[in-house]
Amino acid sequence: MRVGIIGLGLIGGSLALALRQLGRSIEVIGVAKRAESAAEATRRGAVDRASTDLADLSDCDIVVIATPIEEIAVVMERLGPLVATETLITDVASVKRPVLDWAQRLPNPSRFLGGHPVAGKTRTGLAASDAAIFAHEPWIFTPVEGQDVRPFDTWFEIVRAIGGTVSFMGADAHDRQMAFLSHLAFVVSAAFSETIQKNADPTAGGPGYRSLVRLAGGEPSMYEAIARENRDALVDAIDRFDAVLHRYRQRIGDGARVRELFGGAVHAGR
Amino acid sequence: MRVGIIGLGLIGGSLALALRQLGRSIEVIGVAKRAESAAEATRRGAVDRASTDLADLSDCDIVVIATPIEEIAVVMERLGPLVATETLITDVASVKRPVLDWAQRLPNPSRFLGGHPVAGKTRTGLAASDAAIFAHEPWIFTPVEGQDVRPFDTWFEIVRAIGGTVSFMGADAHDRQMAFLSHLAFVVSAAFSETIQKNADPTAGGPGYRSLVRLAGGEPSMYEAIARENRDALVDAIDRFDAVLHRYRQRIGDGARVRELFGGAVHAGR
Repeated sequence: MRVGIIGLGLIGGSLALALRQLGRSIEVIGVAKRAESAAEATRRGAVDRASTDLADLSDCDIVVIATPIEEIAVVMERLGPLVATETLITDVASVKRPVLDWAQRLPNPSRFLGGHPVAGKTRTGLAASDAAIFAHEPWIFTPVEGQDVRPFDTWFEIVRAIGGTVSFMGADAHDRQMAFLSHLAFVVSAAFSETIQKNADPTAGGPGYRSLVRLAGGEPSMYEAIARENRDALVDAIDRFDAVLHRYRQRIGDGARVRELFGGAVHAGR
Repeated sequence: MRVGIIGLGLIGGSLALALRQLGRSIEVIGVAKRAESAAEATRRGAVDRASTDLADLSDCDIVVIATPIEEIAVVMERLGPLVATETLITDVASVKRPVLDWAQRLPNPSRFLGGHPVAGKTRTGLAASDAAIFAHEPWIFTPVEGQDVRPFDTWFEIVRAIGGTVSFMGADAHDRQMAFLSHLAFVVSAAFSETIQKNADPTAGGPGYRSLVRLAGGEPSMYEAIARENRDALVDAIDRFDAVLHRYRQRIGDGARVRELFGGAVHAGR
């Protein structure tokens, strides 16, 4: 089986490494934006071969788009005419509704299935790539209504083989879930981090401080694009979080019992 | 040197283990509230001996109060008459102003020095204790104005020997710092965790979600007591965090560039 990966950053690079570790029956072809990245991926053994030319993916069985989300529409437009109509295409973006809309302009939209490995690290780029990041993490696919996902069965098997937990969800439901679980988490971490920067001395912080700011170390341009593409759901998530925070603030200020509030949260956290 | 430790939970138990690992020139005497805890600490080799009787600490060179903060005032009242006036006394509580006030009622307040190892884990209790939790973490002491801390020099050496980074700060400054670095961190984590519980499916969460909810797994009664004792500073910290969050929310809602906001936070988080 021949798998093409477009974009050799943290997720694309890690996926390439993970696929290569499955054995030689999978051939991995990488396409990067910069020639140095393609050379580096080859040097690291993350891919069988790599270039900057999408045409090199013309005979792949499946192509995985792992570019930043703001490049996906253009990549699809260029890729469409280069591959056979039966070629399967998927992606790894954290927001799925816009990706599904862009995919409608592919020559054969029924051969596209949106995907999202809920995995990552604070550090980004090929240098941080790690075959293990998908293990025990969700990998959510978002078929459009009535879509036959059976052509992707082999891909689901591969995802499971590299440790992912395959599940299915509508794109809108996925985007609402991620607005809370991932995008709100980043915004809260970033806002906490800025609050600390302005008001306290981070060198006096311990493990609690570190776990709250860790996520804010992510790539700002990636989260800016995500915040734009998932804006309404994210704003709603921030408002709901803010309402909970206000209740905590009120009860703490009143000197009221907060054990039950905290205990309820604990239950959610475990 | 004979060190007494009152309270054999996560911090007291971990401190006992760490002291014992320094070698046999330090004798560690534990006092627990329950006889089973004293027996368990002895069985684990965390202490040389342990009981439920504060009088067993009468000949210690230094006594460390490691009980929950709400028990410290009563412990001091009982301990005072049992130890020699030259006995050094310190504590490990996360809020220092009230502890210093309570310490004024000790027979010899000048022999008390407030301390705070900024260390911990989500799991609490003796069973979770771990000699390594102090390594590379701040251990902040809060002398009162004009206090001669030289009698504690040996204790500072011991704290450094178990890996802590010794620093000094006024109690009020400490409590403001911790309102942000530790107590706000908990409240934000708890509020995030409750928001998720009400609006999303945690099984679809990845590493970002987990790092945000980790802290909310802490002991609710401990954080309730902390929120009460550090109320004003914590409410102020929540309000300042909320102001930052509102600005993020506004800019995200407006579709404005948020890269600089996120990037600034990143800088703080690293």
